[in-house]
Amino acid sequence: MSVTNIQEKLDLFSEQWTPKRIGELNGQQILLAKIQGEFVFHKHDDEDELFMVMKGQLTLELRDRSVVVDPGEFFIVPRGVEHKPTAEEETHLLLFEPLSTKHTGDVMADITLETYEEI
Amino acid sequence: MSVTNIQEKLDLFSEQWTPKRIGELNGQQILLAKIQGEFVFHKHDDEDELFMVMKGQLTLELRDRSVVVDPGEFFIVPRGVEHKPTAEEETHLLLFEPLSTKHTGDVMADITLETYEEI
Repeated sequence: MSVTNIQEKLDLFSEQWTPKRIGELNGQQILLAKIQGEFVFHKHDDEDELFMVMKGQLTLELRDRSVVVDPGEFFIVPRGVEHKPTAEEETHLLLFEPLSTKHTGDVMADITLETYEEI
Repeated sequence: MSVTNIQEKLDLFSEQWTPKRIGELNGQQILLAKIQGEFVFHKHDDEDELFMVMKGQLTLELRDRSVVVDPGEFFIVPRGVEHKPTAEEETHLLLFEPLSTKHTGDVMADITLETYEEI
């Protein structure tokens, strides 16, 4: 039970594509991630996933279109919808999703993480 | 499936103590609220509640201490913990909590809302 400062947590790590857990409630987790470049297309069959942009610009490629998310904005990817996060410049994200959500969903890739570090 | 701009949503209303729903995922909701003054002490027996400050300053009075939350920070009130949100100046909050969460929890007050408007 303590106050969490989002920027202070962001300052604790520099690795890209490695979400860190900064909070947990109601079976959900709050993650921070730094990304740049392209992820892989994947989906989560049972989990909706919220992407909130803190800095930079996120492009979420969907199969039929792309969605651009700027700082102060969020986008919810519904369960079952394939998506590929990409960012030209380094972009900082806050994610809300169930604890059960797998990093690359239904896909296994070199970048796939099994667990997230808590910071 | 569209991008939500948090500030644009905040600009849509001015009423205090009347949370507005701006998103829904995994049985959880994302609310925005403008508050000033004192709420009532209450608790949610089955729901953890996240308070993120967008503007202003939130003081969460607990039974044994007070917690101050500034912009860019959040605090999670665990289920069962009595809390009273207060703010000297108008403060803008983003809340993350289960759809089942009642406005004033186990307490009925004049300010209690039964439902939240979606914006």
